[in-house]
Amino acid sequence: MSTMPSQTPAAVVAAGADLFATAVASQAVVVERVDWQPPMDGTVDDLAIVAADPLRKQANQLALSRMLDVQAMLVGVAPASDVLGLEKGEFLHAGPPLEWARASGPMRGALMGAAAFEGLVDDPEDAVALFESGADVALEPCHHRSAVGPMAGVVSPSMWMFVLEDPATGRRTYCSLNEGLGKVLRYGAYSPEVLDRLRWMRDVLGPLLGEAADATGPIDATAILGQMLQMGDEAHNRNRAGTLMLLRDLAPALVRSSRSPEEIAEAVAFVGGNDHFFLNVAMPACKLALDAARDIPGSTMVVAMARNGTDFGIQVSGTGDQWFTGPAELADGLFLGDYGPEDANPDIGDSTITETAGMGGFAMAAAPAIVRFVGGTVPDALATSRRMREITLGENNRWPIPVLDFAGAATGIDVTAVCRTGILPQINTGMAGKVAGVGQVGAGLVTPPASIFPAALAELARRTHERG
Amino acid sequence: MSTMPSQTPAAVVAAGADLFATAVASQAVVVERVDWQPPMDGTVDDLAIVAADPLRKQANQLALSRMLDVQAMLVGVAPASDVLGLEKGEFLHAGPPLEWARASGPMRGALMGAAAFEGLVDDPEDAVALFESGADVALEPCHHRSAVGPMAGVVSPSMWMFVLEDPATGRRTYCSLNEGLGKVLRYGAYSPEVLDRLRWMRDVLGPLLGEAADATGPIDATAILGQMLQMGDEAHNRNRAGTLMLLRDLAPALVRSSRSPEEIAEAVAFVGGNDHFFLNVAMPACKLALDAARDIPGSTMVVAMARNGTDFGIQVSGTGDQWFTGPAELADGLFLGDYGPEDANPDIGDSTITETAGMGGFAMAAAPAIVRFVGGTVPDALATSRRMREITLGENNRWPIPVLDFAGAATGIDVTAVCRTGILPQINTGMAGKVAGVGQVGAGLVTPPASIFPAALAELARRTHERG
Repeated sequence: MSTMPSQTPAAVVAAGADLFATAVASQAVVVERVDWQPPMDGTVDDLAIVAADPLRKQANQLALSRMLDVQAMLVGVAPASDVLGLEKGEFLHAGPPLEWARASGPMRGALMGAAAFEGLVDDPEDAVALFESGADVALEPCHHRSAVGPMAGVVSPSMWMFVLEDPATGRRTYCSLNEGLGKVLRYGAYSPEVLDRLRWMRDVLGPLLGEAADATGPIDATAILGQMLQMGDEAHNRNRAGTLMLLRDLAPALVRSSRSPEEIAEAVAFVGGNDHFFLNVAMPACKLALDAARDIPGSTMVVAMARNGTDFGIQVSGTGDQWFTGPAELADGLFLGDYGPEDANPDIGDSTITETAGMGGFAMAAAPAIVRFVGGTVPDALATSRRMREITLGENNRWPIPVLDFAGAATGIDVTAVCRTGILPQINTGMAGKVAGVGQVGAGLVTPPASIFPAALAELARRTHERG
Repeated sequence: MSTMPSQTPAAVVAAGADLFATAVASQAVVVERVDWQPPMDGTVDDLAIVAADPLRKQANQLALSRMLDVQAMLVGVAPASDVLGLEKGEFLHAGPPLEWARASGPMRGALMGAAAFEGLVDDPEDAVALFESGADVALEPCHHRSAVGPMAGVVSPSMWMFVLEDPATGRRTYCSLNEGLGKVLRYGAYSPEVLDRLRWMRDVLGPLLGEAADATGPIDATAILGQMLQMGDEAHNRNRAGTLMLLRDLAPALVRSSRSPEEIAEAVAFVGGNDHFFLNVAMPACKLALDAARDIPGSTMVVAMARNGTDFGIQVSGTGDQWFTGPAELADGLFLGDYGPEDANPDIGDSTITETAGMGGFAMAAAPAIVRFVGGTVPDALATSRRMREITLGENNRWPIPVLDFAGAATGIDVTAVCRTGILPQINTGMAGKVAGVGQVGAGLVTPPASIFPAALAELARRTHERG
């Protein structure tokens, strides 16, 4: 997989009954009348400069092939203090850099809960003063420490992390363990039940998974992601099959572990009862692949999309660690119970790393049942996976989508293609309540703010120009 | 669900580019140009008689609604000697009634292995004389004892059975435990490894599953089947998600069981390593539903399709326990290793009970990845699920197929519709080697012999006429 896979034709013009029947019969043929759109405002000059960059084509081929070559192996489960060197008072969070003063409700709620969990305060409410003063605490994006976190994405030293490794290079990425749905820290809840669960995860679940992972040996997360696409998961808001495959792979070692049958049974029931458990493996697996594509001069490929609940940011291979940010938007979707759009916080979480890698919203054709969770229709889900081919550099042949006749997931978002077509990456996402402490209120569909792509393009153009 | 669900329109005539785009966008609309075919040879008169039967319409509504009302619960795992009263020397087999003299290679191989497993002979080869004499052995179809068996479907007293129950009536159905793939008894293999595995299943796996099933309480197999259709399974040749969900549901109780961690770990690894394990729950769940539709005078609904490796037989609601049989055909598909079509036995097994209920070949649209196992193409798989609506009485709303916009699986094969359209039920199947002892050689697609439907229709017509 050292060459860039060719893209299949993105559109077929429909012209009559015969072609109609043929296309319907073959299903996988892309038949979509995407109206031609002018490039995004103000991008014509920058598009011309970047298009003429002699490095661009090869740089993008290299970025894509490096990413596609990564085999992400789950090699361990260990505390953040050990594997990330995180110290007391240090907190990681989702998305681009953020200060407490600009943090949204769910981000504040998660930080408050984490501060209590770490014993910095007794009552989470007391943590407000702690973070306002800022003296004894430090905030840093997960992405800056090779990690990713769903929703608020808050990581503190005592949390246990999945450890993913690229065996070819030894590079590693990390993600905390998934808490389930409803009142959970990552959605900004910090009630006693949330903290009790975090303590059980620290004292029982984490050590047990760590022991089982060591005994099992490396588990191929990239291959599980490929299987998931055959099993109705898109690895962002459906991780049901992935969770079950992980449980299957770890189960024999869990049974043989040093823990009591009661603790093992509780852990197995917790993992099996949380259809999202594998999300926290999928995310670092995607990041591990995308990190391989970083820092290639001339490459216009997006290597991270992430939201902190206030800002949506992207990083691009050819522009180093620079974030291009704009205001996070509200998702359009389905709400739990009596919640409605007025209760939702703007888009939040590092889980858009799945879309960045070609899963999530990009792979919804593989997971049509997801429309019952995030809204939209089945035809939309199928059309979205096709439309994303318009803005990506290639296909991931390790992640074929059966209903698209095994075409690989559209992979490698190209900033120039986004600016040229005006098509924004499609994300599906959980929605947090905007008030700290509420938890999840729904799930839906959202895109990044359009402005960040022209901003990234301008920086790519500036660097192209600078190189001369 | 006491009324018959209405069928969605089965075909749309394509007439131009606009309609084309609309239809493609909606995906779920059936666009297929099924050439009109005359009724099957010799059926015109019988079709007219049965069509005029005043009982027919209501009888079919009743058959379908009775079937759709059944909630199949897995309530236990126990030896065939206990739950079926099977005695030493008694063997059940797949398909319609069969004598040893007419039995195919894999059926003979499975019976020989089972005879050795039960201690009737030391060497399976010695069982040939036993079955030829027939003095101390008795053969009977699984279906005659409320059971079903995949492939050869041989059940002997010491085998442990899944027990499925309809809580509304207490009716029960049964199926043995799945052995995995390759050299296994149900494919006609009887080597020492096959018998060793059967002994381990008798001594460890069966009792352990029985203990765990009792501790867990009833598990809703009908609901799992519905979930499977969201997860790429069609419950005949893909049971991967179903297997994982069963393992998830039983895992806590397995961990807490009285067996040693080593035995539990082995059992968990065995179940998790066999993607077909749930087939043997899916089959009796389908039979439990279909048995509710038996014996309704005037109903033209098929309540069983089954093959013994020599004959393919169907039973129809309105004709009691009568079998209509014809020669089992060879499947067209993909072969393992160096095997080819010349190595394959004709169609065998009770697993066509899944198609009879609307799963399997009828639900392949939910499981497009199956084409890599049974052959065919993804568009064929989608088209097949639509085509089966032409010969079925309704849809199963508990089993929605997401990619068909959540239309329920086509359910309730109507003998008159098969004869009128000439469309035969589509089955996907494993293929056994035709020589006893070989095991599996491939998997593919097959249909029943056409002749059995006009034969069933003739009997329906005779009974209609008799009622006057």
